[in-house]
This record gives sequence, structure tokens and C-alpha cells, in this order.
Amino acid sequence: MNEFELIASLSAGLPSNAEVIAGAGDDCAVLESGQAGRALLLKTDAVVEGIHFSPSAEPEKIGHKALGRCLSDVAAMAGRPLAAVVTLALPRNFDAEFVKRIYAGMNALARRHGVAIVGGETTSNPERLLISVALLGEVARDKCPLRSGAKDGDALFVTGELGGSLEGRHLEFEPRLEEGRWLSEHFAIHAMIDLSDGLAGDLRRMMESSRVGAELLARAIPVSRAARRRARAGAPAKTPLAAALTDGEDYELLFAVAAREAVPLADAWRRQFPNVRLSCIGKITAAPGLRLLDENGAHSFEGHGYVHFA
Amino acid sequence: MNEFELIASLSAGLPSNAEVIAGAGDDCAVLESGQAGRALLLKTDAVVEGIHFSPSAEPEKIGHKALGRCLSDVAAMAGRPLAAVVTLALPRNFDAEFVKRIYAGMNALARRHGVAIVGGETTSNPERLLISVALLGEVARDKCPLRSGAKDGDALFVTGELGGSLEGRHLEFEPRLEEGRWLSEHFAIHAMIDLSDGLAGDLRRMMESSRVGAELLARAIPVSRAARRRARAGAPAKTPLAAALTDGEDYELLFAVAAREAVPLADAWRRQFPNVRLSCIGKITAAPGLRLLDENGAHSFEGHGYVHFA
Repeated sequence: MNEFELIASLSAGLPSNAEVIAGAGDDCAVLESGQAGRALLLKTDAVVEGIHFSPSAEPEKIGHKALGRCLSDVAAMAGRPLAAVVTLALPRNFDAEFVKRIYAGMNALARRHGVAIVGGETTSNPERLLISVALLGEVARDKCPLRSGAKDGDALFVTGELGGSLEGRHLEFEPRLEEGRWLSEHFAIHAMIDLSDGLAGDLRRMMESSRVGAELLARAIPVSRAARRRARAGAPAKTPLAAALTDGEDYELLFAVAAREAVPLADAWRRQFPNVRLSCIGKITAAPGLRLLDENGAHSFEGHGYVHFA
Repeated sequence: MNEFELIASLSAGLPSNAEVIAGAGDDCAVLESGQAGRALLLKTDAVVEGIHFSPSAEPEKIGHKALGRCLSDVAAMAGRPLAAVVTLALPRNFDAEFVKRIYAGMNALARRHGVAIVGGETTSNPERLLISVALLGEVARDKCPLRSGAKDGDALFVTGELGGSLEGRHLEFEPRLEEGRWLSEHFAIHAMIDLSDGLAGDLRRMMESSRVGAELLARAIPVSRAARRRARAGAPAKTPLAAALTDGEDYELLFAVAAREAVPLADAWRRQFPNVRLSCIGKITAAPGLRLLDENGAHSFEGHGYVHFA
């Protein structure tokens, strides 16, 4: 049983109640708020030393990433983050100054986005630092794009540039909270997801939830400079495009919107966010599967994020 | 800098916002709900293999404890738990069946108390299992007892029996959710806290938050059978009373109520919860410090949970 099968098995038997609008399986859970037109969002995520950051990473950036990952999920629901609680599991002989700097990074990001940090738990995890953050947010109930609403013919957009995040972006990204809310306030976003496991893998999640396929236009995919560098340096080397499709940890937004909205959306975006790139990278198809179109024709993706070029 | 000093230092600089009614420092954070008369509760807590449970513990009980600790904190706020999210950090070569049994224990407890489990994060923590649970709850805004409301002359009550929890109770306790809500609905509870670090330590927290002292009557403290066994077997041996005061992980409720309410409350409790012991163990004093009264007179407690008998 692999990780995905285990998670699927665990998710199937979870208890629910009348408060749940959408449970496990989207970027955040969506819950009744008791207020008409408003829903609550709940999310948890964790970073572990040696897995999500190296032991030599700057502590401020570790704290930034720990909170930032949850904020990116709230962004993908077009939500507003309200309050976070933090489990800090500290290794033996931790340095108090190091821990204070982790919090300094987390606090700075929280302040920029109006998030309160309202408590936490400090425990021991002798071999390595682990930080788990849980976040409460809110969203306009009819403006909360799930992964499951993408429709045949929708245009697919992605914010920013993709690939090579491990060169630095994964510790420094600014969650696309303002962008996510603006999109949902001004356009009928059918589906949205944040990119944490690579464009190919996360698009596949949206496809599965929405029971659709997708076609990506190779030359439209915004490949970052870091992806180009990383592709050359990797062992085995990837093409820059493959790096952009599969590197992961981009923390950008991928969304689907009706084709007729694509041009007005792109125009309005440029006025609203002149410094954030937005790319229309392809479309949703009724036919299942993920296809990449380049100068040589259409090629199938296989697997869950790794690209086999024809 | 010890753990308490570090936590105090971190807590001092946390960002807040207009949603926060009570932030870090109580059993749960209390947040605006957007509904008159209702507040939200947010809490996180974690259990770590080798620290909060032994590697040989039954997985169902590990799951029970991971969620139960958060539920006990909601009980101490007289709250109703709504939804939980779970970070599951799995060691190398984890067994999928073991993980399913952890969830079975967590799900069973959640169902008994109407809690939805609405998502989670699975990650690796190579050397040991760690589970962090975050819980969202709700509470009647004017019926939410903080730690800080205890007043000179209040009677101090504790539910259940104390000490020796490591013999088994720490993996099996049923959070006092119904009891906590009943208390707050029927009586003006001035302050309440759940006992996780031992009566002496947690009472001291209530005293510090409320800026009061307390006197405990030694023979009124409900010493569990497990505390008697554990006291005899311990090395160094404790008296059973010392075990009840300092063993920790009782997950019982300690609360302060006006002295004039003490007798009506104890009478009503016996009718409502005939199978749950309730003990009046002493009183709140204006004079600072914690004193224990026994047949030899009054003795001071020192330290944060450990008892120095005269």
C-alpha cells in the first residue's frame, strides 16, 4: 500500500457532522460558520527538518515556510486567513535563539496577511525539528473554488513561474492570498488549487476531482530561471520544461475559468497585479488524461507528476 | 532559558487581530465567530512516540490520546468540539495497518463527541511517530471559563481521581466535555483548567493567571488506586498524595466557583453524573502561594508541581 492508497483508505472512513461543507480532499476543509454567506476554512500542514528544509536553512525562512504552506492553501480557496496555532517539536539541545528566529519569520508573514497566532504546543522530537501549523480562515460561501468544478473547455491559468523552487523560492514564497481572493471576487473561477507537488501532479488532482482531462501547451508554461539552472545541474538532468512540470513546491495558483472569461481576466490581471506573471497554459478537456502539445504534436503524461516525453 | 521561559518569550511577541478574544495562554484560544453570543475555540496539541506513548502502546489508544488531549482542552472551556485536522508524521517503514488502527481509535472518540475529522497532512518523521491534532470548537461567549477568573474565597473542585495515569488512564481517558458544558450552563464557573501537568502545576497556572493563591485540604484530594500503586512502585517512591498532586496526565477538570454555590453544585452534580466523582479540595486565597493543609498544619508547595513535605 503506497502513501496515496493509505491516505485514500483513511479518508474514506472519517467521521463527519452537519458543520462540514467539504471535508478532507481539497486544499482546505470548508465548514459552516453560522453566518449566512460565510464559511470557515480549516487546514493543517507540517514541515520536517531534512525533508522540507535543510538543517542549515535560516530559521526565519523555516518559520515563513511552515506558515506559508497553510496560507497558500487558504489562497487556493480564495479565503482570508484568521488565526493559526503552532505545534513546535524541538530536537534535543535546541537553541532558544534559533527558535525565536523561527517565530520571527512566522510572525512577520502572519502580520503581513493579518493572521493572529493564538497559541501552540511545544514538545520534544529528539532527532529533528518539526513544525505543524493549523490555520482557521473564512471565505464567502459562494466564492470558494473547489478542485472539483473544472469543466470541459475551461481555460487553465497559472500564476508566477514554475520549477527550481528548491533553489530558494520554497523558503521565501509569498502566498497568493490577495490574488486568490481577487480572482474569485471578479471572475467565476470553476476550480483552483495551489501548486505544491508540481504542475503535472496538482493538475492531475484537479482533473480527478473534476472528472475531466487537460491539454497543456508546452511553450505557454512559464519556466522559471531557477528551473533552467536546476534542469542543467540535476542528475539525471531534466529539460527545463520537465522541471517546471514536476519540481514541486511552487506555491503558485492553478485555476480553471470559462474560456469566454480568459481574455477579460488576463487584461484585468495585468492592471491589478502588474508585477505577477499570469499564463494561460492550456485547457480542460472532456477526454480523460493529461496531454502536452509541443512542436512535435501531442504527448501523453504518465504517472503522477513525472513526465515521459515522447 | 528553560522551556517555560522560552514559551513566555515567544508568546509575548505573537501577532494578533480583531478576531482574537483570548490568544495563547489558556486551554484554547477564543475567537470571534461573527455570531452574537457565540465564540470559536482553536487548539492544537501533539503526541510523540517515546514521550507521550511507548512504542508498544496499542495504536487505537495512541489515536484516542492524540485527539483526546485537544478535546480535554475544549472541555475546560465548556466548549463543543466541531472539527479536527490531523498531522500524521510517520517513521520509516511504518505499517499501514498500524496507521489505520490509530485512525480507528481517533475516529471512534470523534464520533462519540460529534467531531468531524476534515483533513490532515501525512509526512515523514523518520525516527518516530508524531501526531499533531488541531481542533475547532464553539462555546457560548458568556459561558466560557478562562483560567484567569478565580477569586478570593472561591471553592476549588476537581472531577475524577488523580495520579498514576501512566498505568493506563493517559491512553484511555474520556474527555469531560459533557461535564464541562453542564458546569458552565448551570453555575457561574469563575475559572476552569484541564489537568495535564498535575494538580499542583495546573492549579499554579490558574493562580498565576488569576493573581491569587490557594489552599488545598490534603485529605480531600481524590487519590486514585493507580496513584497508590504507582507511589509504592516508584523510584524514588512518592507518597500517594504526592503522586496525585504531581503525576500529571489526569485529564480531569479543576474549577473555581463562588463558595455559596459549592453545596448546590455538589448536590446537582451527584444527580447529573452519579458515576463521576467530584471533590471539593480547597479554596482560593487572596494571599499568594499554594498551601497544603494536613493533620500537622499548613505546608507550602514549592516549585512547579513537585511537593516538598515539611
